[in-house]
Amino acid sequence: MEAETIVTACVLIIGNEILSGRTQDINLNYLAIGLNEAGIRLREARVIPDIDAVIIATVNEVRPKYDYIFTTGGIGPTHDDITSECVARAFGVKLVLHQEAKQILEAHYKGRMGPDAELNEARLRMAHVPEGATLIYNPVSGASGFRIENVFVMAGVPAIMQAMFEEVKPGLKGGRPVLARSLACRLGEGTLARGLGEIQARYPDVDIGSYPWFRNGALGVSLVARSPDEARLALAANEVAALIRSLGDTPVEE
Amino acid sequence: MEAETIVTACVLIIGNEILSGRTQDINLNYLAIGLNEAGIRLREARVIPDIDAVIIATVNEVRPKYDYIFTTGGIGPTHDDITSECVARAFGVKLVLHQEAKQILEAHYKGRMGPDAELNEARLRMAHVPEGATLIYNPVSGASGFRIENVFVMAGVPAIMQAMFEEVKPGLKGGRPVLARSLACRLGEGTLARGLGEIQARYPDVDIGSYPWFRNGALGVSLVARSPDEARLALAANEVAALIRSLGDTPVEE
Repeated sequence: MEAETIVTACVLIIGNEILSGRTQDINLNYLAIGLNEAGIRLREARVIPDIDAVIIATVNEVRPKYDYIFTTGGIGPTHDDITSECVARAFGVKLVLHQEAKQILEAHYKGRMGPDAELNEARLRMAHVPEGATLIYNPVSGASGFRIENVFVMAGVPAIMQAMFEEVKPGLKGGRPVLARSLACRLGEGTLARGLGEIQARYPDVDIGSYPWFRNGALGVSLVARSPDEARLALAANEVAALIRSLGDTPVEE
Repeated sequence: MEAETIVTACVLIIGNEILSGRTQDINLNYLAIGLNEAGIRLREARVIPDIDAVIIATVNEVRPKYDYIFTTGGIGPTHDDITSECVARAFGVKLVLHQEAKQILEAHYKGRMGPDAELNEARLRMAHVPEGATLIYNPVSGASGFRIENVFVMAGVPAIMQAMFEEVKPGLKGGRPVLARSLACRLGEGTLARGLGEIQARYPDVDIGSYPWFRNGALGVSLVARSPDEARLALAANEVAALIRSLGDTPVEE
């Protein structure tokens, strides 16, 4: 059996608005699902504030640890948009005007009227990227993200972030996607725990998780098996289903 | 003017289900809002997997850096619930049976019938805490969380996590809560950027953020000023409102 290639990623959510509670982040979940589809294991995510020293230190801490780093937030035209500059400083390169990014912005603002049509200095900031970076196109608002080495810098607005991620996703090199089987039942976790632990011990290559929930006032648990190997996953899931039945309940595939 | 006491916190979200994309986390936002109400600045959040070495290293990395650490997830009865044990190892203490936690579980299961009524070995795991820890009561399911030094260990299920946090919140020692004023308008961020940066420069003690949005197909931006000082906040917000008006739009208080 050949060794499996495990490709890893880390997400950095950059923005005071998440840490203040103003905004409920939904980018992490989108990226988690998309990375899994690309066969990439999301190993860690961090939410950090708009503070240059923190952004620089965090980027430099995580980029040697994971295959891919994805950042969200802080690439707009205002004073609190400092991600691009910080990533340049993290890599020790200059932040430079990218001619194509500028042309895209020019085309974007060309057909507009009023103050929002002006490609002013603030908007031109969005055409600056670290030297050597390549663009991530943004069909929504025209302001590009960029990639430098293994770091992908994307917008924080979900619609734009999603468009940027879909733009780069086909080019990501992942391993086999992790497949999942989820079985719900109404037993207590503590009732399932011993048998579930025994199954996990027999399937160390399958990640088995137990997630209790309350839905419409009722209590239940979802037992989730995850593995890139479909056959092993099916075997483990069958054992989980048998465990639920042995305890007097009926597993419901989710 | 006296120096302001800044009390800080870090949230650790422990769980493969967040990193796999199975679950959309909502605990961070709840904690962010609640900590702010308690006058505590949430400086960082991390999502980490159910891997003992990662949990131990992360707890030990962040606990000297922040006044309070809050963890969510991994304190149930199943094999993948390893947070309590990892926190004990992070502190270099034993994981011990807490008599009161056991009594609470006994009382909780006493009135029940069937397999879910049994206080078996797996459920008794939930009454184990690091030596020296104090309990965080859980009115929802009976299984306690705990506090050891500045680390608060809570459940991952949102209803339980929220109950536990509300339990400890009155005892947290914070500084002044950060107040916020949010003004929405339909101008582009790039149109506002220069004036906004000038206001930020005049109010270095007020944190001014610019958050673009799409709502019902329309584009706009929320300008948010945040400060624990109500008077300074009002001055800065007035300047932001004047900026919006000077550019031909009307600010809408959010």
